Amino acid sequence: MGSYLALIYGVIIIAALVIIGLIKFIFAQDKGDEKMQQISDAIKEGAMAFLNRQYKTIAFLALIVAVIIIVANYYGHLSEGTSTALSFAWHVGLAFITGAFCSALSGYIGMYMAVNSNVRAAAGAKSGLNRALQIALKGGAVTGLAVTALSLFGVATLFLAYGGLSGQDELIKEAPSLIVGFGFGASFVALFAQLGGGIYTKAADVGADLVGKVEVGIPEDDPRNPAVIADLVGDNVGDCAGRGADLFESTAAENIGAMILGVGLYPVFGWKGILFPLVARAIGIIASIIGIFFVNAKDESKDPMIALNKGYFVTTIVNLIALFFAVKIMLSGHLPDGSEVNYWLLYGAVVTGVVLSYIFVFLTDYYTSVNKRPVQEIAKASTTGAATNIITGISVGMESTALPVIFISAAIFIAYKLGELALPHIGTSGLYGTAIATMGMLSTTAYILAMDTFGPITDNAGGITEMSGAPESVRHVTDRLDACGNTTKALTKGYAVGSAALATFLLFSAYLDEVKKILGKPIDSWFAVDIGKPEVFIGAFIGAMIVYLFSSTAIRAVGKAAQYVILEVRRQFREIPGIMEGTAKPDYAKTVDIVTKGALKEMVIPGLIVVVTPILVGVILGKEAAAAFLMIGTVSGVILALFLNNGGGAWDNAKKFIELGNYGGKKSEAHKAGVVGDTVGDPFKDTAGPSLHVLIKLISTITLVFVALFR
Amino acid sequence: MGSYLALIYGVIIIAALVIIGLIKFIFAQDKGDEKMQQISDAIKEGAMAFLNRQYKTIAFLALIVAVIIIVANYYGHLSEGTSTALSFAWHVGLAFITGAFCSALSGYIGMYMAVNSNVRAAAGAKSGLNRALQIALKGGAVTGLAVTALSLFGVATLFLAYGGLSGQDELIKEAPSLIVGFGFGASFVALFAQLGGGIYTKAADVGADLVGKVEVGIPEDDPRNPAVIADLVGDNVGDCAGRGADLFESTAAENIGAMILGVGLYPVFGWKGILFPLVARAIGIIASIIGIFFVNAKDESKDPMIALNKGYFVTTIVNLIALFFAVKIMLSGHLPDGSEVNYWLLYGAVVTGVVLSYIFVFLTDYYTSVNKRPVQEIAKASTTGAATNIITGISVGMESTALPVIFISAAIFIAYKLGELALPHIGTSGLYGTAIATMGMLSTTAYILAMDTFGPITDNAGGITEMSGAPESVRHVTDRLDACGNTTKALTKGYAVGSAALATFLLFSAYLDEVKKILGKPIDSWFAVDIGKPEVFIGAFIGAMIVYLFSSTAIRAVGKAAQYVILEVRRQFREIPGIMEGTAKPDYAKTVDIVTKGALKEMVIPGLIVVVTPILVGVILGKEAAAAFLMIGTVSGVILALFLNNGGGAWDNAKKFIELGNYGGKKSEAHKAGVVGDTVGDPFKDTAGPSLHVLIKLISTITLVFVALFR
Repeated sequence: MGSYLALIYGVIIIAALVIIGLIKFIFAQDKGDEKMQQISDAIKEGAMAFLNRQYKTIAFLALIVAVIIIVANYYGHLSEGTSTALSFAWHVGLAFITGAFCSALSGYIGMYMAVNSNVRAAAGAKSGLNRALQIALKGGAVTGLAVTALSLFGVATLFLAYGGLSGQDELIKEAPSLIVGFGFGASFVALFAQLGGGIYTKAADVGADLVGKVEVGIPEDDPRNPAVIADLVGDNVGDCAGRGADLFESTAAENIGAMILGVGLYPVFGWKGILFPLVARAIGIIASIIGIFFVNAKDESKDPMIALNKGYFVTTIVNLIALFFAVKIMLSGHLPDGSEVNYWLLYGAVVTGVVLSYIFVFLTDYYTSVNKRPVQEIAKASTTGAATNIITGISVGMESTALPVIFISAAIFIAYKLGELALPHIGTSGLYGTAIATMGMLSTTAYILAMDTFGPITDNAGGITEMSGAPESVRHVTDRLDACGNTTKALTKGYAVGSAALATFLLFSAYLDEVKKILGKPIDSWFAVDIGKPEVFIGAFIGAMIVYLFSSTAIRAVGKAAQYVILEVRRQFREIPGIMEGTAKPDYAKTVDIVTKGALKEMVIPGLIVVVTPILVGVILGKEAAAAFLMIGTVSGVILALFLNNGGGAWDNAKKFIELGNYGGKKSEAHKAGVVGDTVGDPFKDTAGPSLHVLIKLISTITLVFVALFR
Repeated sequence: MGSYLALIYGVIIIAALVIIGLIKFIFAQDKGDEKMQQISDAIKEGAMAFLNRQYKTIAFLALIVAVIIIVANYYGHLSEGTSTALSFAWHVGLAFITGAFCSALSGYIGMYMAVNSNVRAAAGAKSGLNRALQIALKGGAVTGLAVTALSLFGVATLFLAYGGLSGQDELIKEAPSLIVGFGFGASFVALFAQLGGGIYTKAADVGADLVGKVEVGIPEDDPRNPAVIADLVGDNVGDCAGRGADLFESTAAENIGAMILGVGLYPVFGWKGILFPLVARAIGIIASIIGIFFVNAKDESKDPMIALNKGYFVTTIVNLIALFFAVKIMLSGHLPDGSEVNYWLLYGAVVTGVVLSYIFVFLTDYYTSVNKRPVQEIAKASTTGAATNIITGISVGMESTALPVIFISAAIFIAYKLGELALPHIGTSGLYGTAIATMGMLSTTAYILAMDTFGPITDNAGGITEMSGAPESVRHVTDRLDACGNTTKALTKGYAVGSAALATFLLFSAYLDEVKKILGKPIDSWFAVDIGKPEVFIGAFIGAMIVYLFSSTAIRAVGKAAQYVILEVRRQFREIPGIMEGTAKPDYAKTVDIVTKGALKEMVIPGLIVVVTPILVGVILGKEAAAAFLMIGTVSGVILALFLNNGGGAWDNAKKFIELGNYGGKKSEAHKAGVVGDTVGDPFKDTAGPSLHVLIKLISTITLVFVALFR
């Protein structure tokens, strides 16, 4: 075990060193002129103020939940004796707190780097595209590496502390179940981070646009708009902190789920099967570091997307090669009949996951790219008005759920069968196959996150350039990067929902494993759910409904928070004379403060719905009903998220397609319709959709943590 | 058995006599002046032409399916011997054809009566509100009674012919399974009727509005609009023929499902348990006839809704009383331990179903009424533009899924437990409880359908009055009835989806029963589905996705068909001089012809998706996957239908609320936004939503018919 642990912690240390190097690199860059710094400082201040206040709220909620977890698990395990129950309760509770803390910390790091990189990217744009691109991507890379390395560190350390180092088979096998609390803690923070950030960003955006662009008639990112800083802050808190927390918990939950399934293969692989997910994650971090350093846009006439894709491709190749050796070395052993495990089959599962991630990125691109049929269809429908724009957009969004579902289904099926073929007659072998596929898909997470955070950094850089009145040539550079950032944001959303879908099946299976353990059934038996029972049917019904109720409250929260912004911006235009003439400065900080308060207030109800419902279903209707709730909730959640993300993305780009001069271009009737669609899509794709990613994993981790309490 | 059969057929004969009487009453009414008759004839001609052509298409598709059913069931049962297989195949195939024919026939009757009642209601409006109301309701009652009586006649006769009269226990117990083909035939026709009609009505509506109101600027129902007749035809083919077929198959499928479950209680109730659903339906028909004759709006100053509600209330009371005696007499017997069955508990299940139907009507009213919070919220959001109108509408639609799901869940749970308590230790007793609740809910179907068909009749009457230039006082009467008809249409949609949801659990259980029979398991054992298997997870995934894909194609079909209309209407305005001046008549028939062709062409793809997918899932992934597909497909379908129906209804009434003078009234900016929402909601609530009702039952009946073929 020692050498593997050395590898894992070695990679964590390397990641830490690279992060420090990147931070030094960023901070060594030119901070731009006085004006740029002023704007950047305002954004930084607003973003940090939001994060601090948000974390206080979340910390308060998390503490309550921690107490509930400890008490619930104590009583749930009381039948096994007081000391066992107490030990179990403390282990799970501590894991929860650690997970919550690490998740919050990675969000903090991501945000801190984003708000420091944006102005430097803007200043760097003066020396050309490549410089700005390097700054933005490396700023993003800090987030990507910090998130994945922290997740690996947390899971690995807890595993070791909770029995992994004991050397005793029984304790090693017990350890993965004890760290599910870590996953729950991570998803709990992720949910509120994504929700709060998502509400913030869209409320500020809608408020700024509605009063600024529509009522007063000033352009986007105009410094006279009192909500302009809030809008720029929103890009950070929504996309950076939110998606960072989302993928932090994807990787954590996936690791833990895979380790639990690895326990089932103990007779074949021993502790190696449990440790493999951690090694795979470590490999992914190294591969991503290599990929990041391959990104280079020296030929500045080319689309910067090409440079970013090259890095993604390098990351994938390094991953594929290294994972092959990891599979070959770690997942070898003897089957009960004495024959050797065929590691090629297990490696096939890795490849399945990697291929799926490419398919998801491709499909997302198809449904949201300006060059493809769906977006152009919406643009065309805009010529007959807002209503047809909306109808077509909804139709496209609904249609876009079909192919991803078919490909996820195929991937699960193939990986499952490969697992079964490699390890015949071992109960959880098929599930372990899908777990390996999930590892393959998530192996590029660090790089994907770097690309994702690249988005808000370039977006902010564009805003800073605009507001500081930089020359046209600089703006041209940041505009190109901004367009590129919009693409990466859309694609990573596709990646996030795809990996969530795959992780979901894993977590769902882990839940069934836990139930079996509680019921004293052998782990390789089936836990069959009688779907003819009314409780189970009701659990399913509520599972399908909860994702709608959640989305409804999340979308409504944006509307409510936006109202606060609109009122404030109108007030400032009315009460502060000289704003429009540029002789007086609007009170940016006041607007930022109001969005912050509004978003935090509005995130509580949707968040609580998600946390409370699964527990109620389990406690009132029982374990089987909770299983049905889980299955249908995740499945419907994935599909609704696809609908919301892709529909929103398609509307956004349909507007852009019109702005490129089609169907009359800007200021045409078609453009007006396109703007309506874009506005409708905003809370879809940036609030409800991404929050659903977190929701589907959260209901899995929450049921895992509370299963002992279920009827 | 004889006396019960006498009761059932006696009721059918009474219903037939009442229908004849009502038809005579309608045809004895004044047909109005020359101008009214001209318009009415045009509507009649267009509606009948559409129906005839639609039925040709459906007949062609149904014949193909019939052949597939016969062949599939022959091969599926071949292991039981050639002659058994042959007999089974023919029984199911014949039942399918009978079901399809009866469903089509009831659609035809409904349509025929609607297009003959509309002009008479318009003419009757001259003699006052009550006369017009009586004509419209009695015209609707013909549909209501014809649909339910035909459904009862078909199921009862097939049951008798297929073994019910044999006097042999084994054959009587086998019979219900043989008539599932009837349910499938009914739902097959219903799907296409609802789809084709739904596409037709909205394509014509959107086409007429977009060119007429928006581009040319003439009011609604203006005779100068070339699409105005097509629009009026659409009200009939969408709401009458469509909903008629929908509820025809609800009652048929519910009867068959309940009879299959009744087989499981054979030891206690004998054939009475199987026959009870038919007797309950017969009671419902009589109660509805009584209710219809209680409707009276002599005090014309009062809201006509009060009169209609009174009839509904009377129907319910008669039902409750008569069903009590039916339960007491038929559902009595001795339990295995010798004690008496407690019929009060089973009667409690009836009451549960009746209460649920009232709750559904109430909830639908809450979410779609102009006097309540949700609609007013959308209206308020319209003041900030179309985008906020849409966002709020979607949020309301999503929210509106929560309470119905909770109440359906509660009803299923209560009815199930009552069934278990009444018949302890008998496998299917709980399910039979829910079956009885479904009977309670569906007992008022005939009356509900009368109210529903009342909608398009008054809508048409309004159009005819408007177009014929009748005096203001007459228009005032038809306007009042039209408003009332809009309410009844919305409420029956709520009723239809509620009963579909309840019937769904029943059909789902019937499917599990059939699987058990095929696997040779005892009927009171559980068929447990291993939801940890990837096939099952995939089946669930596809089930959740299919309802989106279907809705997407249905909504898109409306857009495509509307395009044909728009082009044609524009062409007529351009090429026929003098339309706008009123000196030349537009070519109504040509528009009608074009919508007809367009709607029929566009209904094929969404229809085939629904028919083919469940079979593919079953054949490729197996029985368990099909069960998961069924459960998640129906659950997600119900929820998506609630979202689409209620969202659409709320948008519609938000516009009306603004038109009542709120937020600036007609021609205000808020009103423009309201019109956008209304247009978006149209294909939601009148095409995709109602078609989903049929879909969720169709996937149940189709899996029941093809289960023998599944892996």
